[in-house]
Amino acid sequence: MNAPLTADTGAFRVHGFPVLGDELGVGGVPLSRLAARVGRTPFYAYDRGLLSERVAALRAHLPAAVHLSYAVKANPMPAVVQHLARLVDGCDVASAGELATVLDTGMDPGRVSFAGPGKKSDELAQAVAAGVTINVESPAELEEIARHGDRLGITPRVAVRVNPDFELRGSGMRMGGGAKQFGVDAEAVPALLARIGALDLTFVGFHCYWGSQALRPALIREAQEKSVELILRLTDDAPGAPEMVNLGGGFGIPYHDKDTPLPLAEVGEGMAGAVERLTTALPDARPGIELGRYLVGEAGVYVCRVVDRKVSRGQVFLVTDGGLHHHLAATGNFGQVLRRNYPVAIGTRMTGNGIETQSVVGCLCTPLDLLADRVELPRADVGDLVVIFQSGAYGATASPAGFLGHGGPAEVLV
Amino acid sequence: MNAPLTADTGAFRVHGFPVLGDELGVGGVPLSRLAARVGRTPFYAYDRGLLSERVAALRAHLPAAVHLSYAVKANPMPAVVQHLARLVDGCDVASAGELATVLDTGMDPGRVSFAGPGKKSDELAQAVAAGVTINVESPAELEEIARHGDRLGITPRVAVRVNPDFELRGSGMRMGGGAKQFGVDAEAVPALLARIGALDLTFVGFHCYWGSQALRPALIREAQEKSVELILRLTDDAPGAPEMVNLGGGFGIPYHDKDTPLPLAEVGEGMAGAVERLTTALPDARPGIELGRYLVGEAGVYVCRVVDRKVSRGQVFLVTDGGLHHHLAATGNFGQVLRRNYPVAIGTRMTGNGIETQSVVGCLCTPLDLLADRVELPRADVGDLVVIFQSGAYGATASPAGFLGHGGPAEVLV
Repeated sequence: MNAPLTADTGAFRVHGFPVLGDELGVGGVPLSRLAARVGRTPFYAYDRGLLSERVAALRAHLPAAVHLSYAVKANPMPAVVQHLARLVDGCDVASAGELATVLDTGMDPGRVSFAGPGKKSDELAQAVAAGVTINVESPAELEEIARHGDRLGITPRVAVRVNPDFELRGSGMRMGGGAKQFGVDAEAVPALLARIGALDLTFVGFHCYWGSQALRPALIREAQEKSVELILRLTDDAPGAPEMVNLGGGFGIPYHDKDTPLPLAEVGEGMAGAVERLTTALPDARPGIELGRYLVGEAGVYVCRVVDRKVSRGQVFLVTDGGLHHHLAATGNFGQVLRRNYPVAIGTRMTGNGIETQSVVGCLCTPLDLLADRVELPRADVGDLVVIFQSGAYGATASPAGFLGHGGPAEVLV
Repeated sequence: MNAPLTADTGAFRVHGFPVLGDELGVGGVPLSRLAARVGRTPFYAYDRGLLSERVAALRAHLPAAVHLSYAVKANPMPAVVQHLARLVDGCDVASAGELATVLDTGMDPGRVSFAGPGKKSDELAQAVAAGVTINVESPAELEEIARHGDRLGITPRVAVRVNPDFELRGSGMRMGGGAKQFGVDAEAVPALLARIGALDLTFVGFHCYWGSQALRPALIREAQEKSVELILRLTDDAPGAPEMVNLGGGFGIPYHDKDTPLPLAEVGEGMAGAVERLTTALPDARPGIELGRYLVGEAGVYVCRVVDRKVSRGQVFLVTDGGLHHHLAATGNFGQVLRRNYPVAIGTRMTGNGIETQSVVGCLCTPLDLLADRVELPRADVGDLVVIFQSGAYGATASPAGFLGHGGPAEVLV
């Protein structure tokens, strides 16, 4: 408990977070002190130093021309968005709610893009009024944008979201190729570009999203090369030279034992060819990538407190005040096919004496509420703080906070 | 649109809801009119008539002695809880939040029970102060309850939640038997009962929860018989005669084509033996069941509006303003192993001309956001209302309403 308040950066680190005495540190603050400062458990804690480090690593390894955009959906906590807004080149939003958060940071609307398959008419009107770039997902949406522009006396900025004519194997989640609700099929793009030229619209460029949570550099390289090739073909029909070509994101983070972190240097080398080909052919176009999970996922932990320690028929259960209502993905119930444990620690017993096999469960009345299934952990007791790592993305907002009436988690950026 | 405002109960019904002209009716109101009354889409609509019918059917078929409790977790909308509170004998809550909702209905606290594996100290204090029955889940929790009683000068009412020494195959979700975080292992119950006798506590009875979403009467019968047998054994060590024996719930509803509805008459007949055995041995004990999903699940629909109709490579997508942020279970992402379509209709085109294969997706930027995968539906267009049936339980609160910043659904009891 007498751990120093400032992080010893030379100290032993666990999933990027330093160990301070017997405790894990977030933003240099020992966990029990941070819990006292937050005033309640459970909470999500994000480390601003780790966020900055991640952006710096991307800048160091990716080609200098790359426009780096933050996909706010991964973590829309206003303080996180504010911190990243000063470090990245732009933000991508998925709703009027996210748009408001980004505009509040003071970011130039010209650096903001709005994507999503089911944008409502009033959301489109807000985006036109804000002056952000709208990634057009269908012909009907394009007409609606133009109507709002006429009505408001503003020339809307539009990019075309392309549903590629290629599909990639091996990304965690495929979002392009085949029949999809996302974007405009590549073969239908020329007609849409002609219509953009006919309406009072500013053509900004293209958006090509092929998948997410990829951990193999070769896959990312292939996707980026194919995206550039596709967009160079489509540009022939464009009403003007694109100023932005968004090559998607898809950089994954390791969640489980067998996952290996993405080798960023190799990703950057792989990207160089595609970027050079694009900028040679289209000197005015800036190549962009948008990253959500990769920017914030590893900078956050979920922290809950042990409220009971139960032994049932030989198995130890650490019953916590947390659970799937705060962190659905960690319980394996958010679209995962197989349930696998996220990395977990007892944040108040980091020196690790008395290892036992223990399961960590939440406080909900359902067997789905399993945060860690039979893991080796220092023997924990009531009052100890459990930490789930890799929780900075798709945590608080991707969980059913209203379930069973316990209320949502706190969030803190340290 | 000129359909009558009152339901024609003799009319054609779809999943229990009448068809009024070309539209589905909820509580006698045609869907487009209801949408106008709610003022926005998406929304959940619950039919109070169907709720009442379901309780009446249970009363007609189950043994008269049975105490029927509503498990609020299934749908905690205050108006729904208020409606059911006048019809059922009690309510079971899973948190202090749900407790507050039930107390606001005016229900006698003596008819309320509080269960859950990770009750926090302040929740236990609230429950003791309210005078409800606390289903004790562990020895540590029992001590905490007694401490609150001493401090508040109130004798807490406690029941013992038993983790059975039997396990049943074939229920949708097993919650008893083996090593579990729920309840007290049957073999450890005698020691807990002795401790209850030694403390200043009122012993109310037992709670034995074995599983949920069972669709086979034989399984429910077996579970109830085994529960009675177990509890009669445990009663020998009780500090007093139990006044309540909660035999769990577990009655399932059909979600998919191959599911058959529970034959309630057969369930009631199967229950008669167990109830008679219990009441013969323990004349002062009232047998209880607690039902959540079975009471409300089929009385609710989720309604969203088509905002775009897209054809991608031959496949039709109805893009709606709804999605997994409102109805996670319908997208197959809430703990389901296999994704299967919930029953779906175009609520504004019930006469069914021009059937086409269409997929219904939400407005979120993720391929998980699939509400209906390639189903035969009347050809729908922008403005039409899509209805997802069987949505009265584990819908609004069991979904990540904050995801992507679109906001939560409205709810209405009609």
